[in-house]
Amino acid sequence: SNCATLTGASLPWRGRTSHPLDPLSATEIKVAVATVRAAGATPEERDSMRFIEVVLVEPEKLVIAMADAYFFPPFQPSLLPRVKGRPVIPSKLPPRQARLIVYNKKSNETSIWIVELLEIHATTRGGHHKGKVISSKVVPDVQPPMDAVEYAECEAVVKDYPPFREAMKKRGIDDMDLVMVDAWCVGYHSEADSPSRRLAKPLIFCRTESDCPMENGYARPVEGIHVLVDMQNMVLVEFEDKKFVPLPPADPLRNYTPGETRGGVDRSDVKPLHILQPEGPSFRVKGHFVEWQKVFYCLFKLLCSITLQVHWSFRVGFTPREGLVIHSVAYVDGSRGRRSVAQRLSFVEMVVPYGDPNEPHYRKNAFDAGEDGLGKNAHSLKKGCDCLGSIKYFDSHFTNFTGGVETIENCVCLHEEDRGILWKHQDWRTGLAEVRRSRRLTVSFICTVANYEYGFYWHFYQAIPSFDYLVNKNAAIIPQKWKCSYLALDGKIEAEVKLTGILSVGALLPGEVRKYGTTIAPGLYAPVHQHFFVARMDMAVDCKPGEALNQVVELNVKVQEPGKDNVHNNAFYAEEKLLRSELQAVRDCNPLTARHWIVRNTRTVNRTGQLTGYKLMPGSNCLPLAGPEAKFLRRAAFLKHNLWVTQYAPNEMFPGGEFPNQNPRAGEGLASWVKQNRSLEEADVVLWYVFGLTHIPRLEDWPVMPVEHLGFTLMPHGFFNCSPAVDVPPNTHESDMKETNVVGAKPIQNAMIAKL
Amino acid sequence: SNCATLTGASLPWRGRTSHPLDPLSATEIKVAVATVRAAGATPEERDSMRFIEVVLVEPEKLVIAMADAYFFPPFQPSLLPRVKGRPVIPSKLPPRQARLIVYNKKSNETSIWIVELLEIHATTRGGHHKGKVISSKVVPDVQPPMDAVEYAECEAVVKDYPPFREAMKKRGIDDMDLVMVDAWCVGYHSEADSPSRRLAKPLIFCRTESDCPMENGYARPVEGIHVLVDMQNMVLVEFEDKKFVPLPPADPLRNYTPGETRGGVDRSDVKPLHILQPEGPSFRVKGHFVEWQKVFYCLFKLLCSITLQVHWSFRVGFTPREGLVIHSVAYVDGSRGRRSVAQRLSFVEMVVPYGDPNEPHYRKNAFDAGEDGLGKNAHSLKKGCDCLGSIKYFDSHFTNFTGGVETIENCVCLHEEDRGILWKHQDWRTGLAEVRRSRRLTVSFICTVANYEYGFYWHFYQAIPSFDYLVNKNAAIIPQKWKCSYLALDGKIEAEVKLTGILSVGALLPGEVRKYGTTIAPGLYAPVHQHFFVARMDMAVDCKPGEALNQVVELNVKVQEPGKDNVHNNAFYAEEKLLRSELQAVRDCNPLTARHWIVRNTRTVNRTGQLTGYKLMPGSNCLPLAGPEAKFLRRAAFLKHNLWVTQYAPNEMFPGGEFPNQNPRAGEGLASWVKQNRSLEEADVVLWYVFGLTHIPRLEDWPVMPVEHLGFTLMPHGFFNCSPAVDVPPNTHESDMKETNVVGAKPIQNAMIAKL
Ligand SMILES: [Co+2]
Ligand SMILES: [Co+2]
Repeated sequence: SNCATLTGASLPWRGRTSHPLDPLSATEIKVAVATVRAAGATPEERDSMRFIEVVLVEPEKLVIAMADAYFFPPFQPSLLPRVKGRPVIPSKLPPRQARLIVYNKKSNETSIWIVELLEIHATTRGGHHKGKVISSKVVPDVQPPMDAVEYAECEAVVKDYPPFREAMKKRGIDDMDLVMVDAWCVGYHSEADSPSRRLAKPLIFCRTESDCPMENGYARPVEGIHVLVDMQNMVLVEFEDKKFVPLPPADPLRNYTPGETRGGVDRSDVKPLHILQPEGPSFRVKGHFVEWQKVFYCLFKLLCSITLQVHWSFRVGFTPREGLVIHSVAYVDGSRGRRSVAQRLSFVEMVVPYGDPNEPHYRKNAFDAGEDGLGKNAHSLKKGCDCLGSIKYFDSHFTNFTGGVETIENCVCLHEEDRGILWKHQDWRTGLAEVRRSRRLTVSFICTVANYEYGFYWHFYQAIPSFDYLVNKNAAIIPQKWKCSYLALDGKIEAEVKLTGILSVGALLPGEVRKYGTTIAPGLYAPVHQHFFVARMDMAVDCKPGEALNQVVELNVKVQEPGKDNVHNNAFYAEEKLLRSELQAVRDCNPLTARHWIVRNTRTVNRTGQLTGYKLMPGSNCLPLAGPEAKFLRRAAFLKHNLWVTQYAPNEMFPGGEFPNQNPRAGEGLASWVKQNRSLEEADVVLWYVFGLTHIPRLEDWPVMPVEHLGFTLMPHGFFNCSPAVDVPPNTHESDMKETNVVGAKPIQNAMIAKL
Repeated sequence: SNCATLTGASLPWRGRTSHPLDPLSATEIKVAVATVRAAGATPEERDSMRFIEVVLVEPEKLVIAMADAYFFPPFQPSLLPRVKGRPVIPSKLPPRQARLIVYNKKSNETSIWIVELLEIHATTRGGHHKGKVISSKVVPDVQPPMDAVEYAECEAVVKDYPPFREAMKKRGIDDMDLVMVDAWCVGYHSEADSPSRRLAKPLIFCRTESDCPMENGYARPVEGIHVLVDMQNMVLVEFEDKKFVPLPPADPLRNYTPGETRGGVDRSDVKPLHILQPEGPSFRVKGHFVEWQKVFYCLFKLLCSITLQVHWSFRVGFTPREGLVIHSVAYVDGSRGRRSVAQRLSFVEMVVPYGDPNEPHYRKNAFDAGEDGLGKNAHSLKKGCDCLGSIKYFDSHFTNFTGGVETIENCVCLHEEDRGILWKHQDWRTGLAEVRRSRRLTVSFICTVANYEYGFYWHFYQAIPSFDYLVNKNAAIIPQKWKCSYLALDGKIEAEVKLTGILSVGALLPGEVRKYGTTIAPGLYAPVHQHFFVARMDMAVDCKPGEALNQVVELNVKVQEPGKDNVHNNAFYAEEKLLRSELQAVRDCNPLTARHWIVRNTRTVNRTGQLTGYKLMPGSNCLPLAGPEAKFLRRAAFLKHNLWVTQYAPNEMFPGGEFPNQNPRAGEGLASWVKQNRSLEEADVVLWYVFGLTHIPRLEDWPVMPVEHLGFTLMPHGFFNCSPAVDVPPNTHESDMKETNVVGAKPIQNAMIAKL
């Protein structure tokens, strides 16, 4: 029957196992590392190589389109690129490539390597003969992100340093097992921080019990000791016991996992709450490709001659720096087929500046993506704890510092959530009610950077044709036909960050109170700070591959002047302004004018003749509260505004440049790129949304902070004509069927090519 | 054993069946109405009485405290009022009273009656001999809210009016069954709208199919016909067919419940998602009293000598105007016993002003609470549709226009929801992770006012001692004792409004485009508008009955000037300002300074010596976009600012005054009360938080709008010392135990009184 599901399961693979956007496999990472190492000129050079990052080179967009059209299910021929109106039929895809950031521990040089990966199968063993170096270059005057191995080495070196042991002894600490040394990047405050040295300035903490691995050591900061570590040579280059600040008293409330000695929950009447999906989830996953909520309509119920489907589809990616990446976001929209929304969504940077000008707090401006890596520091998630329901997990693979491969199992979580009512209306005349529940598909990961935890969530919204019901005072009048189910649409994409973990605290002198933060326990003080996040959204609203047909308009609601057309003075209206170029598109939020931005296709209209679009709806937001000349804002100039829009350029990925660590170049990245002032009137646009919150610590944030939420929404705005389910003229519904027929038979059929 | 649960089930009732805050029962409403009707001087007067509202008179706070302390479980003796340090032992509670708003349809007079209700049992039948009129007074120059009966009568009268039928005929409509006449209050734009007449200006709509009760008739607005109805005498007082605007074409996408003729969902792979609570919910309900998540701690596990509990408690109330009311919100905090947070929380008004200055839109400024009633228009909720999980529903009772009693079954929903992770920390040294899930208790109702739906939700947050787990690379090093469970706290109260339903649209002339809204379908236009809500929060942070010990501080984060104490220019800090009096406390949101407000107890400190408090964290918000001299802002002056704080006064309930309908008195209510400029330095404070959103309609909001969310949070700020679970000095834990012992025995024991 034509109502059959398109499964794609038995289709030929055309000789490729990895989609061009699949993250590097463990084997590929191994090959890439081996290839680069083998390319080292001398044994010394090979020994000195440290592997900061090995990541897939995402191919250009047309290659992705060809892969999706022709090489990988569900085979979407509408994506084939066209030349002079005719589809280009590729013979094969280019080989996958890896990009490596290599730090030479001997020369203090950072280099970037591109390695081509020959066809690698799961059975491939190690060999460098499977990779080929395409290019390598030294990047001058940068420091790459720090690695966990360096943190551990730094801790050991500091703890072994006799003057440090002496200083700790002065503070009453003999047992070095109690001491925690958290290396922090130094930022760039003066020439002394120049990347000619690889520096870290550790924060020192001290636990109280040596046999308690779960003790919260962050509760006893050790103040007054200045340590500067050369991380290249792993030696202390500066040390001074500057000021004697006694260790704060051991806070009896410091632990989030108290032992039995302190009493635990003995009994509670908190009853279990389970989320059950007896038939499994509604999503389908093939490799890293996700489809969600196929709904099939048979328009003529008896004949069942035409079948349509609507659903979200996207690919899950992952990088050491960004963590989760969402590729190729599209809505399959019944007769209209696949409609692109975005090419790539991710969080590319975050910055956490602290408000205390004193040592050591003024140096705390962590760039957790660019200095450490959100993906590298991701957690292995557990069902029932991190996520409920029917879960699909994805693993992630990384290189470690010395080039070994490490895997985080269950690193990305994909699951569905019920989100309460989606819509409801009850007619007051009849008492008849209709209600639909909202469900969302959530993709997420959680990472730890030192003391703090960040969860990053992308939520895709759609309705389910839910349990219909009628609230009817006079049931007799309802003909049965009104009880049929019906799909309603939301179509939102929500980005959410959850902040939790342990506050970064300082010690106070007895009796001291500091205006820059909150005293959260006797002698313990948590400075005020801000958390900023940058979402990079390579949009492609209603664009086919190769099309650069988007623009961004800003909407502000304006008060109408009084006058004869406004005698009751009630009038206001939304005013649109096209952001014509990059410098015009540097914008801030303004809740008082309901300001938001719409990414529009310049050539596609909805049924009212308006351009189709997706709007970016800010959530609550702020701007940096540091002075405009703050040192860290040289590296983080992108924080100065909430929205930036650029013309897509493949090498413009990180808003503070690729290497923010000790970066001496003011305004590198976004703030420089937009000076080109490229046109945005009809372009391939990238949105950069910068959002943050100001965190004034509370006692209740201690010893562990209840989750704070922050985010924004991408919302269809004239993208759909209304709900897509009824928007179905019966004579134009064939494209999806065509695809189904075709791919089920042969790779690509002449009949189909002729139609393209 | 001392670990036994306090059930209270077998305790004596002391002769009262209704708590002083229980909403009026159906029987009580019947008695109140009968009593007032019997008091009418003449048969004509009795016949003319229409019953707008019959509502419980909430007694003064000390009566409530006595009831909670002595007459109703869980018997909280700490609430007994004290005179000269000694508790006052009441002999009985005063009788309950009802307050009636009566409209005399003959004289156009509005009167307010207070009726004392003698002890009424469920078996009581009708009789007025059970009630006693305490007072009655005519309120001059007001119009009470409209009633659904009046709307229905108005529709009939207009449809019967020959010139109206003529006008509809001109527009091609003969069948009056298709026509919908939605009466709207007129507001107050000039002396012509004076309350000396009871007026309504209907909006006209026209369905297309007479046998389709679920057709969305709001999709065909009928424009150009001016109708003004005298609702007292139910006659048209003005009629004019002003301008011929053709009916917009029947929008094929207008229906949210399409029939089979248009095709429905035939099959989908959207799988069911169930929320199962096999052991039932964690809350307990006794009458209208709710306790949630008792957790008992036995501090010394072997001896089990001391038991503590922590949980939320509150009472559910309901009024015709506000809908859900939350009374007596307290946190039972282990050894510290019952700690009050708020006396009463509710939504007291909402206003929806439209931005189009043209007829009929400029009149659309609905006060959905004060002109109609949020509670009166509430829905009967359905499990599985409106709410999932283990539900406790509450019914609500009202008088109808003619004095009969009507019941909305399942009107208020109480249930628990999983809310993802509450907190997490993974130690980077050990790889050990701890995570807790968040659960919230949600109380809510949903109402329809004409085309729009509003859901009002109060969410109480707490953690559950969840499935612990250890992510451990080296399991051997974890001693078993670290696996003990542990409670963490959130303690937030979140207020949320969900907006859904059907847009209020107008018709366009062919080819017309209007700048005041969005063309959402051919010939159909949805004007831009705003939705404002007013939450009234009678706070009582850490106050015992009779104590007026709260104050409100505003926090703003300030940028520190550059200088020698701020050489890196990074410094910022939170600055507190006490809002000393009512005029000082008229404030607006400011996300750029992270502005928020803390309600503090002036005498209670936490372990750092700071005053305990709860903070009001705004969500996204806005201000009216109408001109400052807009006519509707005379009645809605309270919209001009986001926060107001008043000294509690029992008669200050509704921010636009009790009767906003046709109210000619500019600035009545909040804007007038604060002119008294009462001191707030140490007071019983009431917060009025005004929040709204600007709604620029999208095509995707049609034919039914996916839920928009809006709200704010009350968050503990130094209220707890951290998580309360570990804050337990073993020698001061006796108060709860004492209460348990006492109430189990006799009403109140001498030994206990001596202790009080
Ligand atoms: Co923070
Ligand atoms: Co609206």
